[in-house]
Amino acid sequence: MSSHPDANLHPVATGSARAIVDDHQSEQPLKLYSGWFCPFVQRPWSILQEKSIPYQYVEVNPYHKPQSLLSLNPRGLVPTLQYDNKPLYESNVICEFLEEAYPDHGPKLLPDDVYLRAKCRIWMDWCGSRFIPAWHRYLQYQPMTDKSGLEKAKSDFLAVLKELAAELHSTGPWFLGEQISLVDFVIAPWVLRLWVFGHFKGGFELPGESEGEVWGRLERWIKALEGRESMAGVMSERERYYSIYQRYADDTAQSELAKAVRSGKGVP
Amino acid sequence: MSSHPDANLHPVATGSARAIVDDHQSEQPLKLYSGWFCPFVQRPWSILQEKSIPYQYVEVNPYHKPQSLLSLNPRGLVPTLQYDNKPLYESNVICEFLEEAYPDHGPKLLPDDVYLRAKCRIWMDWCGSRFIPAWHRYLQYQPMTDKSGLEKAKSDFLAVLKELAAELHSTGPWFLGEQISLVDFVIAPWVLRLWVFGHFKGGFELPGESEGEVWGRLERWIKALEGRESMAGVMSERERYYSIYQRYADDTAQSELAKAVRSGKGVP
Ligand SMILES: N[C@@H](CCC(=O)N[C@@H](CS)C(=O)NCC(=O)O)C(=O)O
Ligand SMILES: N[C@@H](CCC(=O)N[C@@H](CS)C(=O)NCC(=O)O)C(=O)O
Repeated sequence: MSSHPDANLHPVATGSARAIVDDHQSEQPLKLYSGWFCPFVQRPWSILQEKSIPYQYVEVNPYHKPQSLLSLNPRGLVPTLQYDNKPLYESNVICEFLEEAYPDHGPKLLPDDVYLRAKCRIWMDWCGSRFIPAWHRYLQYQPMTDKSGLEKAKSDFLAVLKELAAELHSTGPWFLGEQISLVDFVIAPWVLRLWVFGHFKGGFELPGESEGEVWGRLERWIKALEGRESMAGVMSERERYYSIYQRYADDTAQSELAKAVRSGKGVP
Repeated sequence: MSSHPDANLHPVATGSARAIVDDHQSEQPLKLYSGWFCPFVQRPWSILQEKSIPYQYVEVNPYHKPQSLLSLNPRGLVPTLQYDNKPLYESNVICEFLEEAYPDHGPKLLPDDVYLRAKCRIWMDWCGSRFIPAWHRYLQYQPMTDKSGLEKAKSDFLAVLKELAAELHSTGPWFLGEQISLVDFVIAPWVLRLWVFGHFKGGFELPGESEGEVWGRLERWIKALEGRESMAGVMSERERYYSIYQRYADDTAQSELAKAVRSGKGVP
């Protein structure tokens, strides 16, 4: 196990996330088993912050899985939640769980309207089935002889992003409009990591409003995510992510996700 | 489009499903765009039946997509629901939607307990991320020179099934025990099609109780699914599925799902 390339990654959160972690060390019945770097963790972590739900933050390295993690979640993935001494996992499921289990902790992250609730779930699902795979195919793409394959991976990624842009509320700032929702929290972690394409793929800029109204919506939405304390605050210093994403960019990462993308599979 | 091998599949439901379709032809505000053969459709279709929700059944061929389908759902997949003139898709999302939108139509398919609700969602998700891919890898496996690869695909499939078996309520009959739930409806369509392995893969029997208590649970659970009118009733005559599954078994099917499995991707 310890030969996993990520077994020795930086052990703790840094930057703005550090203070949040330090603040959540005391024993609590609700425990979040987390890797500071993990975008899937960031979904429920930001929601815990947003709602000020009391929780204990437990750092584990899912690439060097401690027994404490495996005995809660046989899949050995983070996030894993311990609630009332019982385990929960799958980040989207945890997000909905927090919404249902802590109704007195605002803001409400799902609308009351049954149709809009279903629409939110469609786009939460889209994030895992369409967006993350396209994000990773682009990051992990290895140009062989010419660069046209890389351009294609990039334009495929932009096409997927445009699907979302077209669904964003026309004036925003959030997916649903004035009301922030689970959709925003579920997609945010990968949006807040768009810098990886600039850093590893030789420059990356999103089309602007001038190239279509929907790109303007997307721009506004991204600004809103970047400005939300509960979302941006749980990020660590950018440099700490470099070695992790370098392995994705070289396509040598050994996470379940990296392997799934390499062999063309869905998100594990 | 009409050159798609499934463009000419049998056009209508047969067997016990036929009477249900005939019964649901009159105009209704709630419309289910369906392919009679589609296991993803069967999830919400069975729930509509179970809850006696008024709906109109609209048969479409998703491999020869009519404009009526594409204008509701750009992905062009069934099931697609039309509710109040607005579209919904993704079968699991539709299932939860029916639960929320028709609270007066029993039985309740999600428990009140927030932890158990989350547990249900974990296993609904598992069906798409683990079970269906393993089911299709087995069905689509092409033995090359020897048969050991086929045995491996089969034992991988059984291992995934055993994960579920271990989670089933110890006396059943349903996943949660006495209460039937969304989990049962979401997984049932692939369980009710287990005969494909006997038909196309040269014999298939599940391990029995003597090989472990969990296999006894699974056996009980499968019997319960097969005996539930709302689940078994929406199936057509077995022979009508043969030509469709023959193409999967030969690995020549051209559905998005077949292609995804062939290239190792997740469920579309
Ligand atoms: N579907 C899971 C994915 C979680 C996941 O892949 N987490 C990564 C860290 S970012 C992990 O635990 N990886 C361990 C491994 O790949 O073995 C979820 O949504 O929670
Ligand atoms: N994720 C979708 C999958 C639905 C699906 O794949 N449906 C098939 C029929 S069983 C379909 O519409 N296929 C059309 C195609 O592959 O182009 C859901 O859960 O609703």
